[in-house]
Amino acid sequence: MEWTIHCCVTLAALPRSEFLSTRELAELYGLPKEYLSKAMQALSRARLLDKAMGPTGGYRLARPDSDINVLDIVEAIEGRAPLFTGTGLGRRSNERSDEGPDCPLNQVMMRADEAWRKVMREVTIKDLRLSAENKGQGS
Amino acid sequence: MEWTIHCCVTLAALPRSEFLSTRELAELYGLPKEYLSKAMQALSRARLLDKAMGPTGGYRLARPDSDINVLDIVEAIEGRAPLFTGTGLGRRSNERSDEGPDCPLNQVMMRADEAWRKVMREVTIKDLRLSAENKGQGS
Repeated sequence: MEWTIHCCVTLAALPRSEFLSTRELAELYGLPKEYLSKAMQALSRARLLDKAMGPTGGYRLARPDSDINVLDIVEAIEGRAPLFTGTGLGRRSNERSDEGPDCPLNQVMMRADEAWRKVMREVTIKDLRLSAENKGQGS
Repeated sequence: MEWTIHCCVTLAALPRSEFLSTRELAELYGLPKEYLSKAMQALSRARLLDKAMGPTGGYRLARPDSDINVLDIVEAIEGRAPLFTGTGLGRRSNERSDEGPDCPLNQVMMRADEAWRKVMREVTIKDLRLSAENKGQGS
């Protein structure tokens, strides 16, 4: 997950006309190409990345890096399911009312989940790019 | 995970001298006994539950329910590893400085992780028990 985000920061630093291939990104970070390939496809399906075919093809951000936040990427890869609720683990068929949205425990878990997402929603790829640039290093 | 917490709320509602067996808890919630058994053992190892052997044995809370929070239980089961950082996925052997604690992305992920834990740390088993009692139902 972190590496996919690092790749997006790298793409954000490119001129708008340039694409980077999965192979180039994988080599840059020493990642397995197959791992990265799945992640890039997920980001493309979520319309966070544009894909160009051909020998100079690859990926670029589909919109300005100020308009893509960390949560966008996390949700494109992991989905939007809450971390712990809704697993349906061992759920009885005669569902009890305390297992629904009014369940106090469910409310805690949903609040925790939202707190986690909120932090990631407030940080954009541009923020990460500028932080990396200010430190005088790539992402 | 939710079910393990529900079980702790149930144990919190018992008189101090009583224990409930994994079998009784599993039947109460319609859970697989094996699943619950592992969870109860993990809570016992984390000293959140006392275990009594024998035919009337089972588990009870090891301390007052006002002194056990939701995060205690989550960490006893899931460990304390951050949700996304530290997976070591594809990490290069020549580790770059932007992969350490100063990495801006790592800082976002750690803040998100702490926000998630903070919500769960602030809710005790007693809070959940009282909420359930106020609604006139068990946990």
